[in-house]
Amino acid sequence: MTSSTDAPPVRRPRGEYAKTRARKVAILDAALEVFAQSGYRSGSIRDVANLVGISEAGLLHHFPNKVKLLEAVLEHRDEQSRSIVPMGSPDGAETLRGLVELAAYNASVPGVVELYCALSAEATSPDHPAHDYFIRRYDETRASLSAAFGRLRDDGRLSTDVEPVRAAIATIALMDGLQVQWLLDREVVDMAQELSDFFASFVDAFDDPRLAGARRSEPS
Amino acid sequence: MTSSTDAPPVRRPRGEYAKTRARKVAILDAALEVFAQSGYRSGSIRDVANLVGISEAGLLHHFPNKVKLLEAVLEHRDEQSRSIVPMGSPDGAETLRGLVELAAYNASVPGVVELYCALSAEATSPDHPAHDYFIRRYDETRASLSAAFGRLRDDGRLSTDVEPVRAAIATIALMDGLQVQWLLDREVVDMAQELSDFFASFVDAFDDPRLAGARRSEPS
Repeated sequence: MTSSTDAPPVRRPRGEYAKTRARKVAILDAALEVFAQSGYRSGSIRDVANLVGISEAGLLHHFPNKVKLLEAVLEHRDEQSRSIVPMGSPDGAETLRGLVELAAYNASVPGVVELYCALSAEATSPDHPAHDYFIRRYDETRASLSAAFGRLRDDGRLSTDVEPVRAAIATIALMDGLQVQWLLDREVVDMAQELSDFFASFVDAFDDPRLAGARRSEPS
Repeated sequence: MTSSTDAPPVRRPRGEYAKTRARKVAILDAALEVFAQSGYRSGSIRDVANLVGISEAGLLHHFPNKVKLLEAVLEHRDEQSRSIVPMGSPDGAETLRGLVELAAYNASVPGVVELYCALSAEATSPDHPAHDYFIRRYDETRASLSAAFGRLRDDGRLSTDVEPVRAAIATIALMDGLQVQWLLDREVVDMAQELSDFFASFVDAFDDPRLAGARRSEPS
């Protein structure tokens, strides 16, 4: 919404845009790795710059501070999640299966899950710099998931009369809460399984995407 | 497990113990108020001491640092929760009704909920001082809730064949996740209602404790 006043817009050659974009993605991948390993509080901008092989000033040129970098990391992560979860699929169950797969994937990146949990909890404070980001993110996720449950209801596949938006709220809450509990005890908590069971409890013929192969090979 | 080496054990008169206990409770109530209002990061030991009307050194005599104070605050809060939720009730549904009442109560103390969310997320790090406290707390809660669901199953009141411990994990996850989402949007999320609906979805004849009066007065 705002435009920089201290630098006039410059027409850059196409190649330079692509280079800037590639550099940004490299920074975000590195930041995700650093924050996931060291935690986002201990992980420093310098560590991220070192991993990319650029100077701290060079990094700050793309992301002016750590909070902006964190927000961009979270958006980058959201993009990755969207590649796993087909949010707008005409088959609502396809969306839910994607969420189960996302939960299974998350179990392979505990540092990222830790980053997300800590930041979302902190960002509930209205004065937190990522507060608006999280409000918007939850709004969007609720809306997409409500639509998916709405389609399932229209298809006659919900065995409950709960409103789609309420099912969306419960799904998101379950996923968030499972992450905290799983981080505290990975032996006891199976995030994907809990989520799959939850869906199976009110979505007719819900198939856990991870069991499709196993079921076929089960002795009858 | 450790004993202080710089101060020999002293036999105190009974009255002094009572006084110490009363002072400690006063500090914990004040700390809960300060942390709930200012957040636990901004809230200082000095603020808490001021509210109780004692010196900072006086407070540190009872709780040697902020983390110890926080742990004690959380344990104090757990005691309050136990007074709302009859964890060991022979009627498992009574325990679940208590959890719905706890969720409704929590909606009246957003600062406390914020404190709890932020701290539990942070404490997932193995090097966090409250890490062991949270692991123990989740273990205990899972065990108590598993027992409640086990009693409901024995009473033939579960309409699902999910294992009691898995129902316990899901319940705790749902409650935790709802807190984050509610803090971000209190207009959209109703923690007690979501939890009550969740229980009603697999516990036969589950009665929302908040509706008992309303139902009776509804026109038929």
